Amino acid sequence: MSKKRLNLGIIGAGRIGRLHAENIVSCYRNVKLKSVSDLYYESLADWAGSLGIENITGNYTDILNDPGIDAVLICSPTDTHAQISIEAAKAGKHIFCEKPVDMDPDIIREVLNHVEQAGVIFQVGFNRRFDKNFRKAFNTVREGKVGDIHIIKITSRDPAPPTPEYIKVSGGIFMDMTIHDFDMVRYLSGSEVTEVYATGSVMIDRSIGEFGDIDTAAVILKFRNGAIGIIDNSRKAVYGYDQRIEVFGSKGCVTVSNETESLAVLSNETGVWAEKPKYFFLERYKESFIIEIGEFIDSILNNRKPPVDGSDGLNSVLIAKAAKESFMTGKPVKVEL
Amino acid sequence: MSKKRLNLGIIGAGRIGRLHAENIVSCYRNVKLKSVSDLYYESLADWAGSLGIENITGNYTDILNDPGIDAVLICSPTDTHAQISIEAAKAGKHIFCEKPVDMDPDIIREVLNHVEQAGVIFQVGFNRRFDKNFRKAFNTVREGKVGDIHIIKITSRDPAPPTPEYIKVSGGIFMDMTIHDFDMVRYLSGSEVTEVYATGSVMIDRSIGEFGDIDTAAVILKFRNGAIGIIDNSRKAVYGYDQRIEVFGSKGCVTVSNETESLAVLSNETGVWAEKPKYFFLERYKESFIIEIGEFIDSILNNRKPPVDGSDGLNSVLIAKAAKESFMTGKPVKVEL
Amino acid sequence: MSKKRLNLGIIGAGRIGRLHAENIVSCYRNVKLKSVSDLYYESLADWAGSLGIENITGNYTDILNDPGIDAVLICSPTDTHAQISIEAAKAGKHIFCEKPVDMDPDIIREVLNHVEQAGVIFQVGFNRRFDKNFRKAFNTVREGKVGDIHIIKITSRDPAPPTPEYIKVSGGIFMDMTIHDFDMVRYLSGSEVTEVYATGSVMIDRSIGEFGDIDTAAVILKFRNGAIGIIDNSRKAVYGYDQRIEVFGSKGCVTVSNETESLAVLSNETGVWAEKPKYFFLERYKESFIIEIGEFIDSILNNRKPPVDGSDGLNSVLIAKAAKESFMTGKPVKVEL
Amino acid sequence: MSKKRLNLGIIGAGRIGRLHAENIVSCYRNVKLKSVSDLYYESLADWAGSLGIENITGNYTDILNDPGIDAVLICSPTDTHAQISIEAAKAGKHIFCEKPVDMDPDIIREVLNHVEQAGVIFQVGFNRRFDKNFRKAFNTVREGKVGDIHIIKITSRDPAPPTPEYIKVSGGIFMDMTIHDFDMVRYLSGSEVTEVYATGSVMIDRSIGEFGDIDTAAVILKFRNGAIGIIDNSRKAVYGYDQRIEVFGSKGCVTVSNETESLAVLSNETGVWAEKPKYFFLERYKESFIIEIGEFIDSILNNRKPPVDGSDGLNSVLIAKAAKESFMTGKPVKVEL
Repeated sequence: MSKKRLNLGIIGAGRIGRLHAENIVSCYRNVKLKSVSDLYYESLADWAGSLGIENITGNYTDILNDPGIDAVLICSPTDTHAQISIEAAKAGKHIFCEKPVDMDPDIIREVLNHVEQAGVIFQVGFNRRFDKNFRKAFNTVREGKVGDIHIIKITSRDPAPPTPEYIKVSGGIFMDMTIHDFDMVRYLSGSEVTEVYATGSVMIDRSIGEFGDIDTAAVILKFRNGAIGIIDNSRKAVYGYDQRIEVFGSKGCVTVSNETESLAVLSNETGVWAEKPKYFFLERYKESFIIEIGEFIDSILNNRKPPVDGSDGLNSVLIAKAAKESFMTGKPVKVEL
Repeated sequence: MSKKRLNLGIIGAGRIGRLHAENIVSCYRNVKLKSVSDLYYESLADWAGSLGIENITGNYTDILNDPGIDAVLICSPTDTHAQISIEAAKAGKHIFCEKPVDMDPDIIREVLNHVEQAGVIFQVGFNRRFDKNFRKAFNTVREGKVGDIHIIKITSRDPAPPTPEYIKVSGGIFMDMTIHDFDMVRYLSGSEVTEVYATGSVMIDRSIGEFGDIDTAAVILKFRNGAIGIIDNSRKAVYGYDQRIEVFGSKGCVTVSNETESLAVLSNETGVWAEKPKYFFLERYKESFIIEIGEFIDSILNNRKPPVDGSDGLNSVLIAKAAKESFMTGKPVKVEL
Repeated sequence: MSKKRLNLGIIGAGRIGRLHAENIVSCYRNVKLKSVSDLYYESLADWAGSLGIENITGNYTDILNDPGIDAVLICSPTDTHAQISIEAAKAGKHIFCEKPVDMDPDIIREVLNHVEQAGVIFQVGFNRRFDKNFRKAFNTVREGKVGDIHIIKITSRDPAPPTPEYIKVSGGIFMDMTIHDFDMVRYLSGSEVTEVYATGSVMIDRSIGEFGDIDTAAVILKFRNGAIGIIDNSRKAVYGYDQRIEVFGSKGCVTVSNETESLAVLSNETGVWAEKPKYFFLERYKESFIIEIGEFIDSILNNRKPPVDGSDGLNSVLIAKAAKESFMTGKPVKVEL
Repeated sequence: MSKKRLNLGIIGAGRIGRLHAENIVSCYRNVKLKSVSDLYYESLADWAGSLGIENITGNYTDILNDPGIDAVLICSPTDTHAQISIEAAKAGKHIFCEKPVDMDPDIIREVLNHVEQAGVIFQVGFNRRFDKNFRKAFNTVREGKVGDIHIIKITSRDPAPPTPEYIKVSGGIFMDMTIHDFDMVRYLSGSEVTEVYATGSVMIDRSIGEFGDIDTAAVILKFRNGAIGIIDNSRKAVYGYDQRIEVFGSKGCVTVSNETESLAVLSNETGVWAEKPKYFFLERYKESFIIEIGEFIDSILNNRKPPVDGSDGLNSVLIAKAAKESFMTGKPVKVEL
């Protein structure tokens, strides 16, 4: 392992950019978060000061041009990911890019070409892979305890729908929300999707339908090895953030249920009450965000393949596109990954 | 309520016929199980004697011709259900018929015509509706606690595949196994299916594929009210008979997990061990078989609509046929119920 | 095994006597329930008729004098158990006696002497040993999976206190309620109690205190092998009948939680709701009552030691007496078993 | 709230002192960890540097004499707690003192006198009160959802016994281990203990008995309001760190079960496997250690009563002493709190 202290920059200090910044400062004292850029950088001065961040700027090129920066986290809006990634690669920076890299597979391929030419590390922000529960399920599968995989099921339901403004630019439920589940089935299965059938309805909020989107979805995936994937999504589970998985195979079945706010249970005349699932993704996946950055740092320091790479970023988008097409045409759609 | 003691006959004394016989003798002392017919009736003498059954015969028409018999349970092989049902209706007997009534919807319609003309009660053997757990889920939904239904999920996996001989005449996984789940989604949803997409693979036993059948299946259903149904089946869950449901809606989500062999849990150095799900359908659904017959008896005594009627028998078969067609064509298939 | 069909009589047709009668008729067709006696036998005619019981009488000696009766179940009030048991033994009848045999250990010893002289089988009604969950825990312990036992814990709480009239003649909470737990710790531990410390309070119903009794109790037991037993009781758990056990040892810990009314669980905005424990002992221990009688019948037919014998009946009463003394004196009390 | 940035010092940089240091640096950027003292301070240079701690010293009086230090955390060996606390109080420092303050109640009283005279805040390190699960149980009780408390139960078992060297100076199981549970029952009950009965055995390690100590214990407590407390302890639960509580009352029962390493569950032919409880107290109570220090800081900044004060430190020791006496004499012992 290199003895040099790594210097990081963060591009985009919205909710997720600030989360990464705080996690880096709290948890990774072997690296330095040197710079942060954001269009609204003036309002970040106090926050950045409290974290000991040296530079804040309104222009991300300041970070890319800084020879003292080794790696960047791209946490800006989705439609800027590709352009900034290409520039960062050209500048020789290692890149952690939030998902999705882009909604257009061809643009992602262009990004990956630049990344390859530059020889930098490129990790995509599928944080759920680093959740300890899903990781344990993954390890259980890899250890052969489930045998050959026959069925993978994911239930993924948000506690509340996003704003109409967000829905409008989100790329639709499959690109915005199910994409996490597409990555998760790929991760768990160790196989590639060959066909997608997707359907859904507007059950929660009529205005979502007005943008041509849906709020309730079901997807069946076929894998190269014959296994079947089943995903269901909802934009609104009133009981909280519902995140469950199941991998069923020839030797057994591994499941992960929801993390709850506490383990206190009250029995009374009306029944036995347990706590709801954790409500919000930042709370539910808190640790996973820390670990994914630790893995990114470790990949750089040890010059190894990152745990979620460019092809993971590309393939999840290809599946999402196929799902959207299936939903639009009412027929299963083949995917070539 | 009639004061007269009801006399019953059972046609077909295989596993399920004998089960009904024993349940009737043990649990319903207000009725009399008078006669049982079976092709191999000679071997049943001891068993029938221990239950106090007066007549055993090799010919079911003996039962239909007995004016002292009020009602019959048809537990003979599937391909005889329709013919015997028609004869029983003509003889004025109330009918409990094991599922499926027939694999051909037109034949079922003919049966239902005869039933209607005869004015007899006709109940179909979808016993799972009478399971206390599913019934509680049903009641929770009916009480409005789930709100509008958005998604219904059923996991239904057998502990081991049937024999090749059985597979050959079973009508295929959708007609033989998923049909229970089709009935369950109709029961839970209170809405009718409008479209079916079904897919599957041979993952467990190559010989099942040789009969053109599959052993691992996934189905997505659309309901008239926009809700989505998702079913997954396997012919072999090594950990036992896996029977779970989930109804998700605008106000909440009700789930039913597996009944286990006991509630003992052992914590040791290797983990925390709970018992497996009950292994076999006769064990898991033991009580439901008793209750369904109690409901049949009660329907006769009170001259009321049976809880599972002819249209339930017909519609589940129509969905099963559509599922098979979807699987064969690779496309969703519309259903008119 | 004897080929002769066993004839049984039941003495006392209150709630528990009638339960045994119905279980015998429904479940054990290899025996015949020939006679039932009860002070109020006239009102039992219809019930007895529906079960096919030949004789009902107001005088239990009619049963004891019937040479056709092989065995009796003594289900009369506690203060008659000993006298009837002695007479039944003298008449050469095998005996199933509800618990407690008597509240006075010397009287129990006298009963056991008569039983021994008569050479009849004598089983005491500690039904909980036959609950499938506790039996699984017992087997887990016997298989060595818990290792050496260090701690046994029992939580045993009733859903509602009995009537004041019952409390008055009950012998107190330790003799009436905890006695089941004393038997259970003996059963689970396979060791004998050497010391008892018992304490308690009146927390639920002041009138219980007026009879010198308590409604909330805690007991610590020492076993010959050094293990510790801990029991807590309440006469009123508003959420139902709370019956849990735990056996902790050098290799692990086995626990049994409550059986619930169903497995349906509702998640909504207010939390995650499961069903309450089964409310009533007849419901919770339904199967155990059937099995204990099956074991009694089997003990007779195979002329083997019954699973709960006279010493079990005696020792549980000795512990209950010691508990009462400990509660009265405020000090631990030694027990010699 | 004061705008001044608080400066902290830590006295004793063993396992728990270093944990607090790291938590403060990671989580409380509004305070400054200025100094750390430890007898072996030379070996701490790298560690202290990585945390940005300015001063490390072998002499805790350097910290007490530093006028720039507002508050100290006393994490040195137990037998130094009292002396350092008194000196710190005289120096006008706010004090967070690890438990127990001392094993001698009179010495604790002397400490508390000095604290009172100095008018400094004095918090004792009963971290479990800040565990989110127990806190939720506490809040449930305080909201009246359990009604009047009748029974409080705590199961508290370590994964492995400490070294013989530690046992020798530990003050015995009641002072070292059960003391946490004594504090927890006081916290949950909101009432004071009036009587203690304690018993126990050497079941795990004979060498523990050679120091006059035990490794398996059971305690029954009586509270002023009539409620009963029940604690069981073991020095070795092979399945991990077993930490459960239960509060039972007139309106219901709240329980907290164990946190597990993950929520993954594997069903296979041998059973249904869940993960073990978290193994170690640092892992299980990780968050509680962070929160207790946050509460300490907040108490100083807002000049309010700390959440665990000197009387909590004293009373838990008084109960522990009574428990030891009860164990030695074999009789219940009265406590005056």
